[in-house]
Amino acid sequence: MAQLYFQRGMHEQRAQFEHFFRDYPDYGSHQAGYAINAGLETLLEWIDGARFGPDEIAALRSQTHSAGRQLFGDDFLDWLEQHGSFDNINLRAIPEGRVVHPNVPLTVVEGPLAMVQILETALLNTLNYQTLIATKASRLAEAARGRPILEFGLRRSASLGGNAATRAALIGGAAFSSNVGASHAMGLAPKGTHAHSMIQAFTALGQTELDAFRAYAETYPDDCLLLVDTYDTLASGVPNAIIVFDELRSAGHAPVGIRLDSGDLAYLAIQSARLLNEAGHDDAQIVLSSGLDELITLQIFAQINQEAANYGVDPQRLISRLVLGVGSKLSTSDGQPFLSGVYKLVALQDDGWVPAIKVSDTPAKTMNPGEKDTYRIYDRRGRATADLLAVAGEDLSSDAPMRLQHPIDAHQHRDLAPDDRSRLEPLLEPVLVNGQRVSDPPSLEDMRTRRTDDVACLDPGVRRLVNPHTYHVSLTPDLWGLKNRMMAEARQ
Amino acid sequence: MAQLYFQRGMHEQRAQFEHFFRDYPDYGSHQAGYAINAGLETLLEWIDGARFGPDEIAALRSQTHSAGRQLFGDDFLDWLEQHGSFDNINLRAIPEGRVVHPNVPLTVVEGPLAMVQILETALLNTLNYQTLIATKASRLAEAARGRPILEFGLRRSASLGGNAATRAALIGGAAFSSNVGASHAMGLAPKGTHAHSMIQAFTALGQTELDAFRAYAETYPDDCLLLVDTYDTLASGVPNAIIVFDELRSAGHAPVGIRLDSGDLAYLAIQSARLLNEAGHDDAQIVLSSGLDELITLQIFAQINQEAANYGVDPQRLISRLVLGVGSKLSTSDGQPFLSGVYKLVALQDDGWVPAIKVSDTPAKTMNPGEKDTYRIYDRRGRATADLLAVAGEDLSSDAPMRLQHPIDAHQHRDLAPDDRSRLEPLLEPVLVNGQRVSDPPSLEDMRTRRTDDVACLDPGVRRLVNPHTYHVSLTPDLWGLKNRMMAEARQ
Repeated sequence: MAQLYFQRGMHEQRAQFEHFFRDYPDYGSHQAGYAINAGLETLLEWIDGARFGPDEIAALRSQTHSAGRQLFGDDFLDWLEQHGSFDNINLRAIPEGRVVHPNVPLTVVEGPLAMVQILETALLNTLNYQTLIATKASRLAEAARGRPILEFGLRRSASLGGNAATRAALIGGAAFSSNVGASHAMGLAPKGTHAHSMIQAFTALGQTELDAFRAYAETYPDDCLLLVDTYDTLASGVPNAIIVFDELRSAGHAPVGIRLDSGDLAYLAIQSARLLNEAGHDDAQIVLSSGLDELITLQIFAQINQEAANYGVDPQRLISRLVLGVGSKLSTSDGQPFLSGVYKLVALQDDGWVPAIKVSDTPAKTMNPGEKDTYRIYDRRGRATADLLAVAGEDLSSDAPMRLQHPIDAHQHRDLAPDDRSRLEPLLEPVLVNGQRVSDPPSLEDMRTRRTDDVACLDPGVRRLVNPHTYHVSLTPDLWGLKNRMMAEARQ
Repeated sequence: MAQLYFQRGMHEQRAQFEHFFRDYPDYGSHQAGYAINAGLETLLEWIDGARFGPDEIAALRSQTHSAGRQLFGDDFLDWLEQHGSFDNINLRAIPEGRVVHPNVPLTVVEGPLAMVQILETALLNTLNYQTLIATKASRLAEAARGRPILEFGLRRSASLGGNAATRAALIGGAAFSSNVGASHAMGLAPKGTHAHSMIQAFTALGQTELDAFRAYAETYPDDCLLLVDTYDTLASGVPNAIIVFDELRSAGHAPVGIRLDSGDLAYLAIQSARLLNEAGHDDAQIVLSSGLDELITLQIFAQINQEAANYGVDPQRLISRLVLGVGSKLSTSDGQPFLSGVYKLVALQDDGWVPAIKVSDTPAKTMNPGEKDTYRIYDRRGRATADLLAVAGEDLSSDAPMRLQHPIDAHQHRDLAPDDRSRLEPLLEPVLVNGQRVSDPPSLEDMRTRRTDDVACLDPGVRRLVNPHTYHVSLTPDLWGLKNRMMAEARQ
């Protein structure tokens, strides 16, 4: 496409593309009610280093037409080598960590047509995945009700994509990760536990699980977290852990806790808590892992609430000791492993911005055309009540009721009286101007705060894990009018 | 764990770990009946470059105990900096591209305990994902019945993991990929089509879909593949493509074909074929894309077989023109986005190899202990009938019936008379000896040939996409005896 634009003299014509996703992740039996935006800094780092260097140009030059001739002309390749960078693009985006919704532009790129087209795959590859994983992490955080989540997914994540998974999980709701490199890059200490193999190594050499636990306590007296299910959780693992914890306390150290990695986690957590409590270790953490996702976590908490008291264990105190180790199902977004993010041409400059559209027989897939402004509207309680897409430059300061038009159904709209709205917040912020950053990268803490602030502004029905309320994404009457005119024209 | 081993003087004790997966990918309504091994070369490249350099050591030195002291001792870090490489490991593996089954070791690593433990996450991260994706690609190839598959998944794959997805898809069943860089690395030309944005750009500037198609044909007269669903597939896209194809033929070029990317793909393929045939373009390819996976492909082929003749289109001729563009659902293994691969300590050297075990309340999760030999047994027809795990060094050359013991159920076994077996094939091959490769990397063609040869040796029931026969993975009576003795000991 870039070569075609080059041959037609269209390659440096300014174009505007929007990145948005079409639907919340739908995990089969349950669909998300909101998403968490992530991946922008990773994309900016990529853009900063992306060039068509000699190796890339040589690789392109070696491509051939079916008829055998060189596929890319020397004139085009020369242009690409000299001008094939992202130095001339402007990029606006919704900041990482914020709550986001379908069909709202998360990233808007403006620049020479050929280069903003070339950016498409890298942009989608980077942003779709991290937004997907940050969203899953936020759902886990909802299910965990304040208890910490440890991200353990690297061994089964998608090759080098595992580092992006860790980054997104840490933004979206995970407290820590066992991924040493990615944690370090985010300025966090990694957190993990030992593996079964450590116990196996000791027993293969004629020693016991207890010997292995003692060795671990000797090496890490203040960080002693023991995996107790190598042979038999309640008959061997927990009793041996208690012996070692007693010894640690006698020596003036506080044991950290145990990890349960198989079996009926709710039942074993209750029974382990009972044994630990009886031995005076009622502050020891209980880390749960093995196939956890948001619904299994919800179920474990419910089962503990229902059953713990039957065994003399206080359910709330037990829950306050839990830590959730979540692996494969977080780092692959099990149930919905990709986000439906797209990157669409919305406008082209030709004596001002000319809007562009793509229609579809599926009404939900017909895009919203043209250059836009985007807002989040808050109600009187300070709750986010809708996201609103407007034609760029529209004046929305009127005191009249504000009409929120459904993006597809002409007959559905909502009129919001001035009293019903407390704030109209622009969502997109400038990020790159002529390829240069306009502000420093946010810290992990900044991104996490955005998430918790935004989630707190959602209606509890939207936050629900199963069958959430639908958050409104609406158009202004002006944008609705533009969309309808262009659809009619395109269909002629 | 490595520091603990170091402090106990166990860090350089030779250990043997096995990598295997527990279950075939299960995509919800349908589980795979075999898997395709992939990822080994990527792992070997990683191993070759992996070192604890000054940056890594400094990062580790900055980690602290909960009590604030330095977590890793200087003596341990010095050892890691000097000896923390994989120069002393031996690695055996089943070659990439081969059909593989659960609980059979795919990779066996032997070396100093600390280093083979440190290798775990990188090994699993690399091998689990590529085996998962190669398996999905092989299923798509089964569904496509010889028609080519193009891998289009990069925009929604897992960040940088998308390159591994392309590699694995090309090994497992995809003919080509639109991923330019990963295709180039595999020695293949990339294949793709233009996007909707190209049509949109022309129409935004007052031109038409036909103008855009003509421009594409002018730039790529011998590679003209047109995306026909930007506005209306049958009323606009296909008729405009036919005009351009007529013009190309008049100028002496052969048009390639069209791509359908939305709507009822089977119906639109039939109707597009009808229009193309009527215009004399009965050799134009029809590329289908949009949410394809193996079951949707199966359904499209079935629908074409049932309905094409009603519209005067020969179903077999239409199918012979199809090309399948498969994106997100291939590169994320939709339905089952991770493989249950694990890495378990099976033996430790201490006056010879001492077997190690981990038991579990879930019998299927109790591993097979000890150093092993592994074989594939072929029946008289040359079909693979079972994989067999034996104690290392067992003599299986006897003419007596060979007992194949079920790995969990003591009462299930099969006795295979000498006449019923045509070949006993060792599965593991030496790959690294003292960290050095023993042979050159295989070509893509080598890996693809292994796959097609192995798949051809499977029972058709095992290849079935839905509800396949269960392939047997069995133990020799000697290995079964060892496993049972060790389970009994571990439970005491």
